[in-house]
Amino acid sequence: MSDTNRIICLLILLASITAILETEPTLRALSPRLFSTLEAIFVAMFMVEYLLRLYAVGEDPRYRGVTGRVRYVFSFWALVDLLAIVPYFLGFMAHNNAFLLRLLRLVRMLRLARLGRFSQAWAALAAALKSRSHELWLSAGVAGLLLLFSSCCLYLVEAAAQPEAFGSVPRALWWSIATLTTVGYGDVTPVTALGKFFAGLTAVAGIGIIAMPTGILAAAFSDAFQQKRDHLAEK
Amino acid sequence: MSDTNRIICLLILLASITAILETEPTLRALSPRLFSTLEAIFVAMFMVEYLLRLYAVGEDPRYRGVTGRVRYVFSFWALVDLLAIVPYFLGFMAHNNAFLLRLLRLVRMLRLARLGRFSQAWAALAAALKSRSHELWLSAGVAGLLLLFSSCCLYLVEAAAQPEAFGSVPRALWWSIATLTTVGYGDVTPVTALGKFFAGLTAVAGIGIIAMPTGILAAAFSDAFQQKRDHLAEK
Amino acid sequence: MSDTNRIICLLILLASITAILETEPTLRALSPRLFSTLEAIFVAMFMVEYLLRLYAVGEDPRYRGVTGRVRYVFSFWALVDLLAIVPYFLGFMAHNNAFLLRLLRLVRMLRLARLGRFSQAWAALAAALKSRSHELWLSAGVAGLLLLFSSCCLYLVEAAAQPEAFGSVPRALWWSIATLTTVGYGDVTPVTALGKFFAGLTAVAGIGIIAMPTGILAAAFSDAFQQKRDHLAEK
Amino acid sequence: MSDTNRIICLLILLASITAILETEPTLRALSPRLFSTLEAIFVAMFMVEYLLRLYAVGEDPRYRGVTGRVRYVFSFWALVDLLAIVPYFLGFMAHNNAFLLRLLRLVRMLRLARLGRFSQAWAALAAALKSRSHELWLSAGVAGLLLLFSSCCLYLVEAAAQPEAFGSVPRALWWSIATLTTVGYGDVTPVTALGKFFAGLTAVAGIGIIAMPTGILAAAFSDAFQQKRDHLAEK
Repeated sequence: MSDTNRIICLLILLASITAILETEPTLRALSPRLFSTLEAIFVAMFMVEYLLRLYAVGEDPRYRGVTGRVRYVFSFWALVDLLAIVPYFLGFMAHNNAFLLRLLRLVRMLRLARLGRFSQAWAALAAALKSRSHELWLSAGVAGLLLLFSSCCLYLVEAAAQPEAFGSVPRALWWSIATLTTVGYGDVTPVTALGKFFAGLTAVAGIGIIAMPTGILAAAFSDAFQQKRDHLAEK
Repeated sequence: MSDTNRIICLLILLASITAILETEPTLRALSPRLFSTLEAIFVAMFMVEYLLRLYAVGEDPRYRGVTGRVRYVFSFWALVDLLAIVPYFLGFMAHNNAFLLRLLRLVRMLRLARLGRFSQAWAALAAALKSRSHELWLSAGVAGLLLLFSSCCLYLVEAAAQPEAFGSVPRALWWSIATLTTVGYGDVTPVTALGKFFAGLTAVAGIGIIAMPTGILAAAFSDAFQQKRDHLAEK
Repeated sequence: MSDTNRIICLLILLASITAILETEPTLRALSPRLFSTLEAIFVAMFMVEYLLRLYAVGEDPRYRGVTGRVRYVFSFWALVDLLAIVPYFLGFMAHNNAFLLRLLRLVRMLRLARLGRFSQAWAALAAALKSRSHELWLSAGVAGLLLLFSSCCLYLVEAAAQPEAFGSVPRALWWSIATLTTVGYGDVTPVTALGKFFAGLTAVAGIGIIAMPTGILAAAFSDAFQQKRDHLAEK
Repeated sequence: MSDTNRIICLLILLASITAILETEPTLRALSPRLFSTLEAIFVAMFMVEYLLRLYAVGEDPRYRGVTGRVRYVFSFWALVDLLAIVPYFLGFMAHNNAFLLRLLRLVRMLRLARLGRFSQAWAALAAALKSRSHELWLSAGVAGLLLLFSSCCLYLVEAAAQPEAFGSVPRALWWSIATLTTVGYGDVTPVTALGKFFAGLTAVAGIGIIAMPTGILAAAFSDAFQQKRDHLAEK
């Protein structure tokens, strides 16, 4: 990676961390002007980078001339770059709606997607996952059916005792997903003996739900690196 | 998979999602007629499919003629198909008992079993699990003994302080299963120093309980795919 | 396994389940005489079995004659068998102390150890674990140090805010073990920003704590079965 | 390991356990003088050991003479040894600040680092982790992005309902890390339907977060021991 790219990566990370910290009201209250100033600086830098890229892209024969530049502007990564700049100017509009304001703050974090320009690691990960996509889908299917089955069981036996938490299958799903993934918040727990019995079965089944993808991924990673090593040994 | 089968799969999924959503009282209140109308449409479609299958099955020499058709009606998948239709007509009877009503709503979800007609993936999964059934049973035995042992320990030391939660081994089992599976609801936790000591040991043992089936399944999946690859390489 | 052994195993399981259920006060209240009658029957049967074994063991030249019988009585499995009978007669003494009473009820569950007489599976499991004992101890050491380190961190930053839960390192250990094993009861959670920061690091480290033994066991099981298969292929 | 080293290890462990127990106020109250006496004895012993090492190191030609001894005093392990003694004398100063007092108590636990002098096992573990550092960093990156993404989602949809717990991305991170690591304290849980939906997705993604490093480590350990065995077989 060149020094220029490293500086751009650093800028993206700094801008994202600033965007994260800006969401915290107590930090905003400390220095109301700081965050807007920082954001303006980051946007200015990204604009300079964008214009320099637009200028420099002329070296590539595909993007030469005005039509080439227009074609570049609509290419995937150029649009992602633009996404890092545009939300700043939209920010002046939505200051009255709290949800929109939160959304606009977070849109800035899409700049992290620009890091994808500099990394090939994701491809290796995606390939390892894709080679076992059949098994992973199968275990997702098993997990989905177990999720549904345990929700239905708890709905049947707990709905009368706790209508708020288990009064319907979608409501029971919240408990079910927290149990099968072994997260176990404990905000909703069965209180009847039968409910606890089915909950126990669900918790045990949750181990299988974790063990299956782990086993599949372990095998996938083991094979992927074996192939790479065999490949290196042949040379 | 043919287009007809794809449409039937889609119908089964839609009918199941409708059945799930129907259990939610707030959604039922929004449009009381919608769900009964949708259910009637789904049942009508499944009936048409059932009759068409019954007609078309005559092409199979085993099911030719009236006696052949009767034999088909009592075959496994035809009974499963029937299960997707019959509960609708039972639904008119049980409207007074809340538990029966919930049960009838869920029986509709048995339609998902019909998807089994279109899938051979379960066989592969079952074979992988069966090849290690001995080790999986062994780890289930270890888990069972640990579950019992930790329940007994907590019953011994916590029963005096929390008779409601640890007053008997079956009661302590609820805590024990939530801890060994690392779900950890937190609705019941030990309060005495000795109870916390044994609970800590149980939590650590829970890692082994998760690690053992994961290790076994990882080995099973790794071998299963190695064999498949060796098989392909020989050809 | 012979039919006689199967009946004895069944008896042991039934006696253990009875002992578990007897600890539940609501079940004891239903029929106060039932459990004592059942226990008397089980003890009578185990006594008959014990005497028959004592008689039959004479066929083994090591245990012939009176001195042989005495030697048998003090052999490991004979003592375990005796453990299934003796607590019944001790039960008449301790009816005034609640803790001793609970302990005596649970001693009956030691009968499960008698199942060890009929199983060789534990040996295979123990061998698989032993072959990796070095790595397992190492990961236990890493886990222990992490446990201690996170307890110390939380004690430092949370003791002032929550003296009851984090007022000393042993107290903080309770939180620490629940977090590192990803059980997460939630009865004790950090409330300061710094405490939450260290807790987050601890939770992430907990993934490593689970991943390490899982990885080691996966490798151990994979190798154990590979060797068995290679062994079979050579024959 | 020689007998002398074993005694020193035991001393270090005893001193650390004493330091841990001393943090508990109820134990300090039992015998206020005991802990300070024990600490004085341990420090005296470590001082004797330090001086004996300083004397004996003269046998090594590198550390001969006065300049050699000074060079030894500033070597890494000698400084670690000194760290086990010095805090005792600092302890007389900071008795008024509760935080400093807690810190000084914990500094004593740095003595555990002295055990590193006697162990080569860490090197093997570090090598196994290092051989897969690329994949482990990649999975850490995926985990980080998922953590950020789920915090942003929950901030968007839950901030209005629970400003205290989800009012900013850093606040939502606390919930997010507890969910993705499947710890699930339950002190903070989403209450809106959309919040629960995203929380469910996060919990499911958490399985992947656990499965990835587990798979990578399983492959790493499997390969490391395969190489060791191949290495032994070649000899």
